[in-house]
Amino acid sequence: MVNPTTEQQGGAESRLAKLGIQLPSAPSPLGSYVETVQTGRLLFLSGMLPVIDHKPAYIGRLGRDLDAKTGREAARVAALNALAAMEIHLGSLDRVKRVIRLAVFMATAGDFSADPGVADGASDLLRDVFGLESMAVRSVIGVQSLPLGVPIELELTFEVEE
Amino acid sequence: MVNPTTEQQGGAESRLAKLGIQLPSAPSPLGSYVETVQTGRLLFLSGMLPVIDHKPAYIGRLGRDLDAKTGREAARVAALNALAAMEIHLGSLDRVKRVIRLAVFMATAGDFSADPGVADGASDLLRDVFGLESMAVRSVIGVQSLPLGVPIELELTFEVEE
Amino acid sequence: MVNPTTEQQGGAESRLAKLGIQLPSAPSPLGSYVETVQTGRLLFLSGMLPVIDHKPAYIGRLGRDLDAKTGREAARVAALNALAAMEIHLGSLDRVKRVIRLAVFMATAGDFSADPGVADGASDLLRDVFGLESMAVRSVIGVQSLPLGVPIELELTFEVEE
Repeated sequence: MVNPTTEQQGGAESRLAKLGIQLPSAPSPLGSYVETVQTGRLLFLSGMLPVIDHKPAYIGRLGRDLDAKTGREAARVAALNALAAMEIHLGSLDRVKRVIRLAVFMATAGDFSADPGVADGASDLLRDVFGLESMAVRSVIGVQSLPLGVPIELELTFEVEE
Repeated sequence: MVNPTTEQQGGAESRLAKLGIQLPSAPSPLGSYVETVQTGRLLFLSGMLPVIDHKPAYIGRLGRDLDAKTGREAARVAALNALAAMEIHLGSLDRVKRVIRLAVFMATAGDFSADPGVADGASDLLRDVFGLESMAVRSVIGVQSLPLGVPIELELTFEVEE
Repeated sequence: MVNPTTEQQGGAESRLAKLGIQLPSAPSPLGSYVETVQTGRLLFLSGMLPVIDHKPAYIGRLGRDLDAKTGREAARVAALNALAAMEIHLGSLDRVKRVIRLAVFMATAGDFSADPGVADGASDLLRDVFGLESMAVRSVIGVQSLPLGVPIELELTFEVEE
């Protein structure tokens, strides 16, 4: 894990570079919707999935097919897709003022509780890129199924420069 | 499907008329809440269900009791209820500037993935009424159960004239 | 139930006192996030759980381990935690202008429908504290599992003084 104190210097783009992260190609809609909508300083994102090159990178449910560690990786991949979608919208992630809301939906089975540690796969990445002062509120919810059979979906809202 | 290019002319009310859509009676709350809340230019709607005359028009889960085609119809009925609730609030749907966010919760069973095609039952209607430039961000989530046993619930946020 | 007409006099803090409610200690994050984020006049809260002193006060699913009456109590406890988190953020609940959105996620089992009566455990408290004119839009969703195995999670957005 990156030391957040160090990483808070500079903007999001320079932190991304220091973290050695190259953003994936941005996700594309699966229906009659768009990936980003901005109104005023609020930027809303479509549900972000752990897809790579438009294909599901993880399939199955936590607590049956996938363990928490894999779920955490899937949450990180979905968060990287969110960054890619935002970069297309904003031009630069430096225009993000803060993360507002993160809802983490995870497909679970049996009595596997929706696991905050899985959600940290997304939250920790956002903290490392946008800084400790920009941490979001968060909800974690274990659900029955998600599109394409993936284990994780993220709903994100950001505050951005108008 | 209506040709979106043609349908982008005129406001939402004239498009509704061209589509031959008559809005149902507006839904009413099942508890201590209201159907619409506006703050500034943001209009939030309560979870919209596929009810007709305050009774569930579809009951059951997708992938067990209902197929995707029926789910798609249910999503459209729920979206029509959203339009009816908004018309009550706004006086006219022409005061809608854009759809911001659509979350589609669908009750699923077994390994039926939350199906983007089902959600398009709502998204396509919104696109036809508000135009291609007004498409929302979207999340699709398969859940365990919904109020009244219905298969679909929509959460919607709109940008409207203040 | 408190008579809402009477209770609409005075601010939220005086209503809390009249209702004899002492707020619990505020919840603390289970990961890389914060409990409240304000942007302009919008105040977003993290998913609120029925925890007391940071431990789950209710465990299990509605329709299998817990009945609707217990679910309603759990929803009220989660709503009290929301008030506690907001009081920390705002200094005083009198700075709340209205409740905007309440999403009630409840862990359900079998064919137990997500029950509006359970959600009223939270909605009724919010109505009693903030008044009839401040009622929120609401979504009720039955899910597979929630953090710590609790039966209820609330997502809340408020309008507050800037």
